[in-house]
Amino acid sequence: MRQRFESVLSAITPVDRTLAQAAQAHLDNLTKPRGSLGRLEELALRLCLAQGGGAPKADPCRVYTVAGDHGVVEEGVSLFPQEVTRQMVLNFLNGGAGINVLAREAGAQLFVVDAGCLGPDFDEHPRLVSGKVAQGTANLAKGPAMSEEQCLGALLLGVNLADIAYAEGVRVLGTGDMGIGNTTPSTALYCAYLGLEPEAMTGPGTGLDQEGVRRKAEVVRRGLAANAAVVAKGDALGILAALGGLEIACLAGLILGGAKNRQFVCVDGFISTAACVAAWKLAPAVTDYLALAHASAEPGHKLAAEKLGQKPLLDLGMRLGEGTGAAVAMFLLRSAAAIYNGMASFTQAGVSESA
Amino acid sequence: MRQRFESVLSAITPVDRTLAQAAQAHLDNLTKPRGSLGRLEELALRLCLAQGGGAPKADPCRVYTVAGDHGVVEEGVSLFPQEVTRQMVLNFLNGGAGINVLAREAGAQLFVVDAGCLGPDFDEHPRLVSGKVAQGTANLAKGPAMSEEQCLGALLLGVNLADIAYAEGVRVLGTGDMGIGNTTPSTALYCAYLGLEPEAMTGPGTGLDQEGVRRKAEVVRRGLAANAAVVAKGDALGILAALGGLEIACLAGLILGGAKNRQFVCVDGFISTAACVAAWKLAPAVTDYLALAHASAEPGHKLAAEKLGQKPLLDLGMRLGEGTGAAVAMFLLRSAAAIYNGMASFTQAGVSESA
Repeated sequence: MRQRFESVLSAITPVDRTLAQAAQAHLDNLTKPRGSLGRLEELALRLCLAQGGGAPKADPCRVYTVAGDHGVVEEGVSLFPQEVTRQMVLNFLNGGAGINVLAREAGAQLFVVDAGCLGPDFDEHPRLVSGKVAQGTANLAKGPAMSEEQCLGALLLGVNLADIAYAEGVRVLGTGDMGIGNTTPSTALYCAYLGLEPEAMTGPGTGLDQEGVRRKAEVVRRGLAANAAVVAKGDALGILAALGGLEIACLAGLILGGAKNRQFVCVDGFISTAACVAAWKLAPAVTDYLALAHASAEPGHKLAAEKLGQKPLLDLGMRLGEGTGAAVAMFLLRSAAAIYNGMASFTQAGVSESA
Repeated sequence: MRQRFESVLSAITPVDRTLAQAAQAHLDNLTKPRGSLGRLEELALRLCLAQGGGAPKADPCRVYTVAGDHGVVEEGVSLFPQEVTRQMVLNFLNGGAGINVLAREAGAQLFVVDAGCLGPDFDEHPRLVSGKVAQGTANLAKGPAMSEEQCLGALLLGVNLADIAYAEGVRVLGTGDMGIGNTTPSTALYCAYLGLEPEAMTGPGTGLDQEGVRRKAEVVRRGLAANAAVVAKGDALGILAALGGLEIACLAGLILGGAKNRQFVCVDGFISTAACVAAWKLAPAVTDYLALAHASAEPGHKLAAEKLGQKPLLDLGMRLGEGTGAAVAMFLLRSAAAIYNGMASFTQAGVSESA
């Protein structure tokens, strides 16, 4: 398992930046003032580079909404009861959740993944991937959330999702999460990977009050202390196992698998960006293959995005997760590709160029 | 003409805010933490209110890209030659411009309007509205750009566009502009309506260098001086005639007509927002029926948006005009309506609510 994972990491290489000149020249020759489509042009260029040159393709695109449970919920870090993870998986399969609506509007395929929900396997469903690695995680406030083996299992599950999508022609992946309590492991990961303080990174999640946020930060601090040895060692895989979650590790694997396959990845909000930081620590070149979909309303997200050197595409005050921000951003990617591929050049349109 | 225009203004009334409670309760009962879809929820609520309650509808939606020429171009305020206005109208009709691509991706209808291009009428085309009010404007640096009659003509052309769209079932309108030199009248309008300084509001437009921006600000200052009497009088219509443009007045009319018809309006960038400020000065309640689609890269736009009390939806560094930002924002409006209409409630989905 570890060997297979190492081979994924070593297959992730930076994009060939010498391709940028031709792509930029193409964009500059379209009938608009240079650069006037702003970040849509930047996205078109990045998509080109990630895909190895040529006409950028944003479709088909697919969101994986990955679910898992968290032992740390016993510390009272969420307003919602733990059974909501399972209930929401069923809501996804029945088509009633936010991500169902937004994936549909964005023209994105949606698959739901059980990476580690408590309870029995879900009944078969054409949109469900049953990949349960474990019955949720252990309480990270008291010790490691996962064994390294579980963590590797979840990472490779994510790599497999990217590979399946690749085999089915998918060009753009979106990350989505569901897991009651999962802002807590995400916050712990940010602190451990980026050297940030729990108090700076802990936010209200689904709606904690100020006192609740303070207690959650304390839980994160206890988690960092309980796993101090692995944090001090700075091993990316060890930190993910100790402080992460099964859906978070799976999403990190999805990002890594996407980068390996030269698929572009729309990274959703606070949870997905924590998975992205883990993937980046494991293989720094992943950032050539992804965009942060949106600035989460969760306050710590801004700092994390800065550390990643990424400016989120959207800032709509969203904080739902599930991949909702990624779905909206997929529309921007499609628009960017369409600009590159569909606009007339100055010569074609007979339009005079600027002085 | 003036009488008809007055009757449009008096038909624009604020939305009924007592409808907000029921709409908010509906949103709060959907399977997500309260408010976690951020500005998509805000948009859904605003769409409800603008449409008078009930299920919000974002489709069909239509962008009008309105073109006109500007006498002030003789002052050397643009990098592009004046003939580009006409050339771009033909590019719109041939489907090769940025707005063609983005309207198509957004699922928006697109119509092109000649409100005052120099030269003969364009050949008939199913997507063209021939509404030429005049052969461009006069040079605002030397006196009024339009007579009040021309300005009223352009305003009523815009109202008619909204009415035609309304008769054809259109629920959401997008504003688009084309007119070489039109950041200059827009800047002059911001200064005159909002009491701002030309140096604070003048930007590079299609790509002027620092010296070019300085000279453009001087042209704006001369325009304000040449029309000082009407600016001092503070009459909204008089200022629009003196410092505006035919496409800008037409877009102001489109916004007013949309508000009258309870159609929601996606206001594009720097030029469209100048038209929006004019509409707002003429009928303050219009802001209940519109959203600023995006923060233009043109630096003065931020200040103008603040004065209007509106936070743009997107911030993608765009500065193309044509309605390109409005088209992208239409996808957000559609997503917002879909959230409101398509998500399951906690009860329907059997999901536990928060503590």
